[in-house]
Amino acid sequence: MSQVKWYFEDFEVGKTIEVGTRTVTEEEILEFATKFDPQPFHVDKDAAGKSIYGSIIASGWHTCSMMMRMMVDGFLREAASMGSPGVDEVRWIKPVRPGDTLKVSTTVLDVRPSGSKPDRGIVMTEWRAINQHGELVVTVKGMGMYGRRPK
Amino acid sequence: MSQVKWYFEDFEVGKTIEVGTRTVTEEEILEFATKFDPQPFHVDKDAAGKSIYGSIIASGWHTCSMMMRMMVDGFLREAASMGSPGVDEVRWIKPVRPGDTLKVSTTVLDVRPSGSKPDRGIVMTEWRAINQHGELVVTVKGMGMYGRRPK
Repeated sequence: MSQVKWYFEDFEVGKTIEVGTRTVTEEEILEFATKFDPQPFHVDKDAAGKSIYGSIIASGWHTCSMMMRMMVDGFLREAASMGSPGVDEVRWIKPVRPGDTLKVSTTVLDVRPSGSKPDRGIVMTEWRAINQHGELVVTVKGMGMYGRRPK
Repeated sequence: MSQVKWYFEDFEVGKTIEVGTRTVTEEEILEFATKFDPQPFHVDKDAAGKSIYGSIIASGWHTCSMMMRMMVDGFLREAASMGSPGVDEVRWIKPVRPGDTLKVSTTVLDVRPSGSKPDRGIVMTEWRAINQHGELVVTVKGMGMYGRRPK
């Protein structure tokens, strides 16, 4: 790991970390969905065009996975990250289409030192992705486990 | 789409669909995590061995994506699926390690005809993955939107 800049104590409630923007290509939408979510509106341009979406759209699991990568690049590489026990709420509010550019951030909602393990704590966050039209497209209420700053 | 066998009306509360088993390889764990979740305990065998997990483990987003694929193969290809507005709860209860075999099912928790759109309804489900030791490793409380059976 690189030098640790983010211990549990460094996540303050209300703090927002902007982790950058990413443009989603048709090629990567098709690649992910072919492997993990080959429903017609994700992998078949003709069928998707006739669906309620009007074009192929990214699998929601793909969008979350892309956001995860942005979190890793944005701060987790320099964090005392110990994984995650889960996610409380994912909302796929608007479709993510080929060519869309997502601006992604995470905001600290709550912090909870572990009751049983004094070396770590849980940080509750809300991830948000906003597209190039300013629309909120995805939110994820997640949990991350982080090591505490050595005394 | 193949012939539709699963319309909204076909999901009865309490019904469980077993969608099969899948063995997770080290290669695919590394491939997914290198792309989407390159934290040391997912991609670096040495670092993972020294982490709280003791070996590399699958990214939780990877596990969910694999379960998604099993749902597609298990019944969604033959369903009037219209996508999903989101997921209510994901719990990564136990690590998923290379060589683990996951047995996956989905159980219908609730069904809600759309109030505004008479052609569709929402089906609430719980996905469960159990490993070769009989341990519950992942649960996902999800929502799926399905077309109603034509009258």
